[in-house]
Amino acid sequence: MRVNDTWYRTIWRSDGRDTVSIIDQTRLPHAFEVIELASVDDAVRAIRDMQVRGAPLIGATAAWGVWLAVRRDPSDAGLEAAVTALAAARPTAINLRWALDRMREAVAHVPPSGRADAAAAAASAICDDDVAINRAIGQHGLPLLEEVARDRTDGRVRVLTHCNAGWLATVDWGTALSPIYRAHDAGLDVHVWVDETRPRNQGAALTAWELGAHGVPHAVIADNAGGHLMQRGEVDLVLVGTDRTTASGDVANKIGTYLKALAAADCGVPFYVALPTPTIDWSLTDGMTIPIEERDADEVTRMTGRTDDGRVVTVTVTPDGSGAANPAFDVTPARLVTGFVTDRGTCRADGLRGLYPERR
Amino acid sequence: MRVNDTWYRTIWRSDGRDTVSIIDQTRLPHAFEVIELASVDDAVRAIRDMQVRGAPLIGATAAWGVWLAVRRDPSDAGLEAAVTALAAARPTAINLRWALDRMREAVAHVPPSGRADAAAAAASAICDDDVAINRAIGQHGLPLLEEVARDRTDGRVRVLTHCNAGWLATVDWGTALSPIYRAHDAGLDVHVWVDETRPRNQGAALTAWELGAHGVPHAVIADNAGGHLMQRGEVDLVLVGTDRTTASGDVANKIGTYLKALAAADCGVPFYVALPTPTIDWSLTDGMTIPIEERDADEVTRMTGRTDDGRVVTVTVTPDGSGAANPAFDVTPARLVTGFVTDRGTCRADGLRGLYPERR
Repeated sequence: MRVNDTWYRTIWRSDGRDTVSIIDQTRLPHAFEVIELASVDDAVRAIRDMQVRGAPLIGATAAWGVWLAVRRDPSDAGLEAAVTALAAARPTAINLRWALDRMREAVAHVPPSGRADAAAAAASAICDDDVAINRAIGQHGLPLLEEVARDRTDGRVRVLTHCNAGWLATVDWGTALSPIYRAHDAGLDVHVWVDETRPRNQGAALTAWELGAHGVPHAVIADNAGGHLMQRGEVDLVLVGTDRTTASGDVANKIGTYLKALAAADCGVPFYVALPTPTIDWSLTDGMTIPIEERDADEVTRMTGRTDDGRVVTVTVTPDGSGAANPAFDVTPARLVTGFVTDRGTCRADGLRGLYPERR
Repeated sequence: MRVNDTWYRTIWRSDGRDTVSIIDQTRLPHAFEVIELASVDDAVRAIRDMQVRGAPLIGATAAWGVWLAVRRDPSDAGLEAAVTALAAARPTAINLRWALDRMREAVAHVPPSGRADAAAAAASAICDDDVAINRAIGQHGLPLLEEVARDRTDGRVRVLTHCNAGWLATVDWGTALSPIYRAHDAGLDVHVWVDETRPRNQGAALTAWELGAHGVPHAVIADNAGGHLMQRGEVDLVLVGTDRTTASGDVANKIGTYLKALAAADCGVPFYVALPTPTIDWSLTDGMTIPIEERDADEVTRMTGRTDDGRVVTVTVTPDGSGAANPAFDVTPARLVTGFVTDRGTCRADGLRGLYPERR
């Protein structure tokens, strides 16, 4: 998407160098910085430390990480070591495993001398496919927003979203934000309530930043506020992403999603999940079996921001001696989900197999 | 309660001076500072800027504010002006109005020359009554925690609380935390999940601080995490305070309380509200008619903390140009409340009039 009049993806093979370029998302919204990954270790670190995040972008970064690995060591052992290290970087997003399986498939049968080229081609294809998937999600989700606009006398569409499922979470376009960009570009009066999304503030830091860069009207709210806004009729639609969704429609997504789904159900607000095909885990039928990453307590006890004189600093917000717990995801049961917006079209939460007849 | 081996209340008439002393809660948890209020304007500012907060403490501060006012101007006009200014300082907490009515009753019939003394006596009585009320809430709430301890094989009692309904929210003891202190002091193995409570972080800043000062085991969690912990069976009981509760049992409390009540209902976790008698608004039967304060967007876009070298700084956490909405309270419908713990005993959410037969 556009940043200062230049069109960016979130990840690309560096021009003329054997590295991969990413936007360092830990520096947003205070600085827009592109950094280069030169090794599989760099890729693992970028995923683990969340310089890249979002299920689709994690998958794409892992794919390029395999390329970085086999460029240096194209042996079977080198390939497997890279896949193992990358798979362990984050446990919840299924796309990571999906991308690594696809890379292994594309690379393992090729003789070592050809593996770097095969990996580059496969990683490029994963990225291009992600862009196509997200563009399709935007197209299939647009009618949901158009319907709200038609139903409301003022034509306004007020969407609440959690965390960042925008272009920064993907290679481009985003998942949950893709229909929003499309609706905005089509002239709809879209307004987005952006959940701050503590502890890492991906809503306030990333979603607000990318919506602002694209000119989409929005307001940041504390994660606590969404239920109240729904009670008062200030939300027409909730639209979120997912890190892994089971065949039965249970949705693992950023911690706090479950609370918004409960409020939406209680207030009669439609709750939709933007779901790229690679994020479906057909092997699971119970969301409670999805592994939930527990992250460092520091993410809760500390917070990063910009001082009035422009320095980016990290401050402690809890008393000395107080610990913290930090589960990174929760699971929203299918019964609380109104429907999915996939790259194949929309369906009810219990109807995924209808869109994917090959999985029946 | 105890701070560095000295027993404090949150508000008291300064020793030998015609001022009122409070703990400046905007400086916690990074600094413990006592400041003096010398005029009714100081009292209004302390309430509005949340140097004091919590429904009972707001009421107590307003009461002492009336004393500060009539000491300088004991005329009818002076009394009414003070009451009007104090009543407007925060709109949601009913205790503010309750305390001011009680002060007016105690002072208005007294000749101007005796009003300062009458006001001091009435404000003192309001404070002493608050302490007695909260002690009683602790006593009536204790059996709920004892029951959990008996039911669990390991004897642990894991309570989730939101915002700060501890001694810092009252004159002493607290409301929701009063049974917790009592259980801890009685030797129960109590562990408290402390919701951070964005945007003002009263959980991370105040609840964690006062629990830590008293030695109660606790962990701070992002406001997003409570639903997940309940889903996974990690919470035995939710216990929160309230700023105003209707005769029908609808509970206005810090923004985000409603979301925790929804999760508790969905997960079968008991959800109790600690409710001092003065916090009941017998004039209302529909929580949706309680005025909800909208506070400054800065509270969402900025955050205060301590740098590693010990300075307390405020940083901006959102991008330039992103606005914010900041409703300070939400309303939890009575149907989501398991019961109330009042100073008269416990009751079901729809059973308040049973405890208060004089209100039937």
